[in-house]
Amino acid sequence: MDSTNETLTLQKKLDAEIDSFFDSAPPLKDSANVWKRLTEFVLLNSSPPGEDRGRRIVCVTSGGTTVPLEQRCVRYIDNFSSGHRGAASTDCFVKAGYAVIFLYRSGTCQPYCSSLPDDALLECFEISNESKIQVSQPYSEAVKRAISDHQAAVAGGLLLKLPFTTIFEYLQLLKMISQSLKDLGPYAVFYLAAAVSDFYVPWNSMAVHKIQSASGPLDLQLNQVPKMLYVLRTEWAPLAFCISFKLETDSKILLEKADMALKKYKMHAVVANELLTRKEEVTVVMTDEKITVHRDKHQPGADVETPLIELLIDRHSAYILHQEF
Amino acid sequence: MDSTNETLTLQKKLDAEIDSFFDSAPPLKDSANVWKRLTEFVLLNSSPPGEDRGRRIVCVTSGGTTVPLEQRCVRYIDNFSSGHRGAASTDCFVKAGYAVIFLYRSGTCQPYCSSLPDDALLECFEISNESKIQVSQPYSEAVKRAISDHQAAVAGGLLLKLPFTTIFEYLQLLKMISQSLKDLGPYAVFYLAAAVSDFYVPWNSMAVHKIQSASGPLDLQLNQVPKMLYVLRTEWAPLAFCISFKLETDSKILLEKADMALKKYKMHAVVANELLTRKEEVTVVMTDEKITVHRDKHQPGADVETPLIELLIDRHSAYILHQEF
Repeated sequence: MDSTNETLTLQKKLDAEIDSFFDSAPPLKDSANVWKRLTEFVLLNSSPPGEDRGRRIVCVTSGGTTVPLEQRCVRYIDNFSSGHRGAASTDCFVKAGYAVIFLYRSGTCQPYCSSLPDDALLECFEISNESKIQVSQPYSEAVKRAISDHQAAVAGGLLLKLPFTTIFEYLQLLKMISQSLKDLGPYAVFYLAAAVSDFYVPWNSMAVHKIQSASGPLDLQLNQVPKMLYVLRTEWAPLAFCISFKLETDSKILLEKADMALKKYKMHAVVANELLTRKEEVTVVMTDEKITVHRDKHQPGADVETPLIELLIDRHSAYILHQEF
Repeated sequence: MDSTNETLTLQKKLDAEIDSFFDSAPPLKDSANVWKRLTEFVLLNSSPPGEDRGRRIVCVTSGGTTVPLEQRCVRYIDNFSSGHRGAASTDCFVKAGYAVIFLYRSGTCQPYCSSLPDDALLECFEISNESKIQVSQPYSEAVKRAISDHQAAVAGGLLLKLPFTTIFEYLQLLKMISQSLKDLGPYAVFYLAAAVSDFYVPWNSMAVHKIQSASGPLDLQLNQVPKMLYVLRTEWAPLAFCISFKLETDSKILLEKADMALKKYKMHAVVANELLTRKEEVTVVMTDEKITVHRDKHQPGADVETPLIELLIDRHSAYILHQEF
């Protein structure tokens, strides 16, 4: 078999796996409304009032997907992710003038909140002697900035938030978003920071009710989730600038795995991060270069997302120029 | 083998399983500090200023435990639980004069917040024209009540919050709490609303690094978590009033399973709830009676926890009387 034939056979196999994944997935709730919100958001940013050209739009995915083990789900497999990366990156993209579709796991960190405590409502506020709500001193600036920046981004039509929980919801929404961004060509970006499960239990072969524990140890067999990155890049959004993430706990294999992902899924950039140091530094792996960016340790409250997004926006601009000329 | 011998053999087997669970568990971080906070809390409530007898103390557990699949954890199995039940129940216990140790899964619903949206900070607040933070109209009463009631409970020494994430942390903390409450005898209550995993991967046999997805489908073998309810009831806190929960998705087996749990673990009450109707009604299964309580549908914002905790406190009072005379 020559290599074109081999590619075609693999492609066919992948297409069949993807069809089987979507066919077996429970239908997305409220999908008509999601589609309406998406298309309105894209339209608004394609011809923003008072600006002579459309804005760039980035889809930021954030948080982990769940894999239900039962149809009426009590137990599930989850991927560890607080959503801090996606939330902080969203702040940076909006600040740089991008419109952001924030596809996030319900309950994870929200844009403009990544520097606040988890239980911000109870931790950051207090009742004054005059029985008025007030922000506790150490948080007063951060809370005010969070609320006002978030309000400005939503009111300015620069931020659309779409929640997901399961891997089924995530991939259906991602496909829908890629369809809504098709006309933007190279002006669209996918920044895929969500921690997506590699394994799943097909809906049809899933237990309907809670698995009973009386019958001894639990044996689970999980299928591999088809590699949607490749399809996103080649079919769903062939002109968009695509950035994926590689998280490993073993630094020895990290860059090699990131490089493999870059080639295998034809990404424009892969952000390689190691579990223990991911808030300090990340390495952006691209075809011709690898660049490590660091948090500015001399500036209090500085994060690694600021230099990371700066670098990626620079490469995105170069990509647009290259596509247009 | 006669039945005493059989019980002894089973007991020995269970003890061995529990030893193996705790021996293999990663040690609890900061355990000395947790123990200090616990004993101070118990002491404060054993002789509250201005009151002539000690308060009743309830340990409310809330949210789901995770089961890590890797030591440097990227993936885990989780139990579905928003923590609403535990949070709302805590409000009711404090209101009734109990001191509450709230053992909760990080990131789940907090006491006094169960009627607020998940992203309360961004959803409930806005910046006014004078660029001041203010609560959005529909939430103003609820937010104010949440912050002031929470503040009062913490300041009054009636609420101690201890977070957990994994099943290892949860069970180690639960054991520590039961030790700290031992002297309270029947004045201590365990209200075990957390969704605790039935299965786990022993720490020693766990993969150190992220499991690689390249090698095809994933096969997982999980051990059963030893039945700690029984040990809590018979050894850790033999005089405390113990309430456990049974959640099923299949109403046909629910009451039968709750009844089995009541007998098997010698609980004083088992709260039976079905996944789909759990916010509307629950059935309290006790040795001589089964009582179903409902949310008051005619009162806006009423929850099922109010009548549930009323009933349980009534039974706890009867239990104390019975123990004392």
